[in-house]
Amino acid sequence: NLIEGAHDAWSGWLCVLLVGLCTGMVAGGIDIGASWMTDLKFGICPQAFWLNREQCCWSSNETSFDSGNCSQWLTWPEMLGQSREGAGAYIISYLFYIVLALLFAALSASLVRMFAPYACGSGIPEIKTILSGFIIRGYLGKWTLIIKCVGLILSVSAGLSLGKEGPMVHIACAIGNILSYLFPKYGRNEAKKREILSASAAAGVSVAFGAPIGGVLFSLEEVSYYFPLKTLWRSFFCALIAAFILRSINPFGNEHSVLFYVEYNKPWIFFELIPFIGLGIIGGIIATIFIKANLYWCRYRKYSKLGQYPVTEVLVVTVLTAIIAYPNPYTRMNTSQLIYLLFSQCGISNSDDLCDYNRNFTNVNSAIEIAAAGPGVHKAIWLLILALILKLIMTIFTFGMKVPCGLFIPSLCLGAIVGRIVGIGMEQLAYTYSKNWLFSGECSTGDDCITPGLYAMVGAAAVLGGVTRMTVSLVVIMFELTGGVRYIVPLMAAAMASKWVGDALGRQGIYDAHIALNGYPFLDSKDEFQHTSLAADVMQPKRNETLSVITQDSMSVDDIEALLKETEHNGYPVVVSRESQYLVGFVLRRDLNLAIANAKRMADGICGQSIVLFTSGNPPQTLGPPPLKLKKILDMAPITITDQTPMETVVDMFRKLGLRQTLVTHNGRLLGVITKKDVLRHIKQMDNEDPNSVLFN
Amino acid sequence: NLIEGAHDAWSGWLCVLLVGLCTGMVAGGIDIGASWMTDLKFGICPQAFWLNREQCCWSSNETSFDSGNCSQWLTWPEMLGQSREGAGAYIISYLFYIVLALLFAALSASLVRMFAPYACGSGIPEIKTILSGFIIRGYLGKWTLIIKCVGLILSVSAGLSLGKEGPMVHIACAIGNILSYLFPKYGRNEAKKREILSASAAAGVSVAFGAPIGGVLFSLEEVSYYFPLKTLWRSFFCALIAAFILRSINPFGNEHSVLFYVEYNKPWIFFELIPFIGLGIIGGIIATIFIKANLYWCRYRKYSKLGQYPVTEVLVVTVLTAIIAYPNPYTRMNTSQLIYLLFSQCGISNSDDLCDYNRNFTNVNSAIEIAAAGPGVHKAIWLLILALILKLIMTIFTFGMKVPCGLFIPSLCLGAIVGRIVGIGMEQLAYTYSKNWLFSGECSTGDDCITPGLYAMVGAAAVLGGVTRMTVSLVVIMFELTGGVRYIVPLMAAAMASKWVGDALGRQGIYDAHIALNGYPFLDSKDEFQHTSLAADVMQPKRNETLSVITQDSMSVDDIEALLKETEHNGYPVVVSRESQYLVGFVLRRDLNLAIANAKRMADGICGQSIVLFTSGNPPQTLGPPPLKLKKILDMAPITITDQTPMETVVDMFRKLGLRQTLVTHNGRLLGVITKKDVLRHIKQMDNEDPNSVLFN
Repeated sequence: NLIEGAHDAWSGWLCVLLVGLCTGMVAGGIDIGASWMTDLKFGICPQAFWLNREQCCWSSNETSFDSGNCSQWLTWPEMLGQSREGAGAYIISYLFYIVLALLFAALSASLVRMFAPYACGSGIPEIKTILSGFIIRGYLGKWTLIIKCVGLILSVSAGLSLGKEGPMVHIACAIGNILSYLFPKYGRNEAKKREILSASAAAGVSVAFGAPIGGVLFSLEEVSYYFPLKTLWRSFFCALIAAFILRSINPFGNEHSVLFYVEYNKPWIFFELIPFIGLGIIGGIIATIFIKANLYWCRYRKYSKLGQYPVTEVLVVTVLTAIIAYPNPYTRMNTSQLIYLLFSQCGISNSDDLCDYNRNFTNVNSAIEIAAAGPGVHKAIWLLILALILKLIMTIFTFGMKVPCGLFIPSLCLGAIVGRIVGIGMEQLAYTYSKNWLFSGECSTGDDCITPGLYAMVGAAAVLGGVTRMTVSLVVIMFELTGGVRYIVPLMAAAMASKWVGDALGRQGIYDAHIALNGYPFLDSKDEFQHTSLAADVMQPKRNETLSVITQDSMSVDDIEALLKETEHNGYPVVVSRESQYLVGFVLRRDLNLAIANAKRMADGICGQSIVLFTSGNPPQTLGPPPLKLKKILDMAPITITDQTPMETVVDMFRKLGLRQTLVTHNGRLLGVITKKDVLRHIKQMDNEDPNSVLFN
Repeated sequence: NLIEGAHDAWSGWLCVLLVGLCTGMVAGGIDIGASWMTDLKFGICPQAFWLNREQCCWSSNETSFDSGNCSQWLTWPEMLGQSREGAGAYIISYLFYIVLALLFAALSASLVRMFAPYACGSGIPEIKTILSGFIIRGYLGKWTLIIKCVGLILSVSAGLSLGKEGPMVHIACAIGNILSYLFPKYGRNEAKKREILSASAAAGVSVAFGAPIGGVLFSLEEVSYYFPLKTLWRSFFCALIAAFILRSINPFGNEHSVLFYVEYNKPWIFFELIPFIGLGIIGGIIATIFIKANLYWCRYRKYSKLGQYPVTEVLVVTVLTAIIAYPNPYTRMNTSQLIYLLFSQCGISNSDDLCDYNRNFTNVNSAIEIAAAGPGVHKAIWLLILALILKLIMTIFTFGMKVPCGLFIPSLCLGAIVGRIVGIGMEQLAYTYSKNWLFSGECSTGDDCITPGLYAMVGAAAVLGGVTRMTVSLVVIMFELTGGVRYIVPLMAAAMASKWVGDALGRQGIYDAHIALNGYPFLDSKDEFQHTSLAADVMQPKRNETLSVITQDSMSVDDIEALLKETEHNGYPVVVSRESQYLVGFVLRRDLNLAIANAKRMADGICGQSIVLFTSGNPPQTLGPPPLKLKKILDMAPITITDQTPMETVVDMFRKLGLRQTLVTHNGRLLGVITKKDVLRHIKQMDNEDPNSVLFN
């Protein structure tokens, strides 16, 4: 018993260990591949073509590579014998950028279309649905995994306005699903497998951001439907192993395992909470615009001819993105790099336009003083506003295309741009009105008391929070990114304001909206059921219809086969007799079919006239062919409710017990059945939505 | 509808905001009070007696107060005209220390005994039980709150081996309970109130450690029974507000809001995982010894005469603790200070014996080199071993006494001592065998590559993890204490090893063990029910007994009153007739009593012979007195199961739906009832424990 228990516990731990290892390695591969191919759009390392720009420059000993270029790394104009600068070089670069982007995007979309249609999109809505108990065959299969990995590298490299964080969750879950088949305890039991999938989702976010605790909370808050506490620890283990492996692979080549590591010198000031909350409100508004526009476009794609040309759509969007993005340096660069730039504070080493202040650095160790913005900052602000508009529009059209695409990074980027602009504005206000009482406390010494990078971070959290409606997990992820307890309050204030504004303007986050758009049978565990309807109002059959039941000892094999042909229910209640309707049990269609087929094949006298018996006793009459005894396939313990049960309780039972159907009785007599589909349709109806939009297998 | 919904949402947020504010302020008050009274045992600030030693010394401008003493602060011998040093002064100090400790402890125990017996102990086992649905009247009342606060300050100041972290959770929950009565939505609904209590528990841990995220996870993992996701965000908000308020009060007078803020220069080396896991194993063993010994002593106290003299017990333990603790400087100091000392790394400013290495500090900025331990370190190790033994023994006797007492701090202290000793050992190994391949990589440069403080932290986490069986929340709390992502892996390795060792040696953590000891009806949501029994085996009545039922239209008022007198059930099933036993509904004893009393008082013809009707139709016979119609008190939607339902499913339903009883039917006929008490007794029986130890109201 002890050994069995130990083996049982072990197999779970071993499984999540393997999931963590594989997720970390796959994530490392994707990071390396994406960064290499992204740089390939700009140039190549002739001595070792498999190196990206940064790695290429490592091998040279040039210490100053301000814009990341070194003599080892050749841009495409240089490869073609042109100089690095000049109009001709610019045009060649531009063309290479567009052509390579098109190539990558075409390859990604074709791979997805040909080999794994499920590999498109972010995958989080589908994983939420799967974890709620719905089965989508092949969604977490090996082909989806392979194509999603390759397609993700390609579509990220194509410079489309998308991120790799959502797809990473899908990839991790596919790894979890495949590896769970190595352990019969998990592979054979869908409920147990979902525990592994929850842990995998945590590992996915963990490697996406380098934030293991945030990953676990994301899995708990956003992805998982039912999160038993004992999987918390395993999820954490899995997330940590994945982050550890990724850190050991070190794809970014720096000492921090997180995506954007920032440190600020100055704490925030109490009155800054006002602009932070303002950023939250702006973030909520931007998020709502994004969600509504994206949903409108996705609905249009779904119901128009556009949906038939997925590859063409991807190509058109890619060409447009590439053409508009290249001229603006902030959209040309990798989105992650842009976010990092926006988050960081201006120091002595930062030579970007954004840090072009009228200040002199006399001493490395002296405090940075507050200063007026120079012309570079003004130019940067205009470019950033253009970038914001472009990114917002392109992301609306990109999310939902038939390539792997996530929206964490684009959302963060939108928010970071807004935040940085607001931050620079505040900083200049503090510089101009430094004698004002608001600023006089902290800014009077002449130090740079306002950090625009912090505003960028808060803004990023606000937009992401508005789009996904994440709350605690968002704050924890941002906290892990910066490693400072100090900034929790601003982040939380912004996330809260953004969520409230988002909830007020449009009820659902992007994932729930996409679940509803696709009609997945997802019973949201967060919404309360507010109506006063009773089980009797929801159950099938309605008045004047008859309920398909099987009697325990009076139906023949032929009767049952006729019933199976006439109706399409997944299961049938078994009652004492058709007159009394007292409930005995529940039998599944699948089991019935199998048992009857088996019995006929065995040919021990069972024929169409045989009585099917669900009792353990003998048949009432002993004439005729021998009876078919099916008590062993009868579920003697179906969940029942009475017809007077409020639907609130019924919905609660469906959620918490993970039911697929429940039987409705009155004084012990069977009245009807409520299936999950009925519940979902009833909720839609109560919310004045189309009840027939719910998909069901 | 919108306004109502907004008000509904608002009242919850406002409630947790108030809870956070109050918890932060109360915690600040307790911290200030405890630190003042702890210092009062050593001396007084004559100019301003309400200041503790540190505050007293702030007002003086002396910069060097190495042992925390300055001329403003007078020790008791000085107050009595003696010199600060010398044998006479030592004796006077010793006596003052003992007498004041006795005074504080006596006051604490008497207050608890006289005004609020529930204020004793840590309160976490009881809060777990309350959150699982059991009601202990007065446990979270205002008297308990007041006495627990005052008693906590006194018992901490008495120098007993206890911490204030567990009681802080109890205090926060009491605040939450009291404030929830301001909001009818929460005050009137026990289930809703538990959401506020969950948030309060998070705030309690948040202020205890300055770790808001850890607090939320502690509430989620350890305290709360059912944690709906929508309360996650509110708990986080509550925890953050509390931490923010405490930080604004700044009771410790430093810039960090956390209890032990440490920063290490050196990262850990991969092979160090071996000693870390070793520390985890040692921690698990120490924790098991502690739990078993403490349980043995508590059981002895409960069943012997000792339980009748709680104040005497406290006094004896206090005298013994004070006498033994004073001579050893490590036990004389505040436990929190000792932990902080053990966690910190030896720098140039640390003059404690623990840092007496044979090294010369030539330059403040140069790296600290590894060095041989000096005589001070050897002396310190011996004193620490003595302190370890004393603390372990005293904590065993202290936890469970009738004063407010928690065991987070004592557990952390035990672990920190062991960890520091192991760390110093490893460091000396690395110094001695610096040429060995294990150490040669990182230690070859002569830097101090092993940080004994980190070992202390890992050891502390291991013992605390073993005692409480916390996992994720423990790691997150320790992570928030240090603010570095770097040390998650060592902490997790140790916590995991400790939990596994603990689980192997003794099944339960200290809180679950105390719940079992006190016989609280707590249905653990973490354990899986492993047995194959059916509902029919567990239900009441057993064979040959009769079930007390009420028929829907054939019993008179007298019959029902007789039934209420004969039996003591909380409720009765209502059936169609005694012969058929088809279930109609369930009626509560309380409602029946009330309805009958009301009907008699109204005196509209209802007498003992009146038929009680639970149907909506007319009575079968129209002769005799008018019938008493009680359909409105009938619960028409009781949860029912069939007799063939596996107990695994039944236990699951009890846990997830929070049931108090369920009705057992067979083919629609009522067979019996399973109450929560029956389930708990059955589990005890299956685990070969005494089923009658379960308490129930």
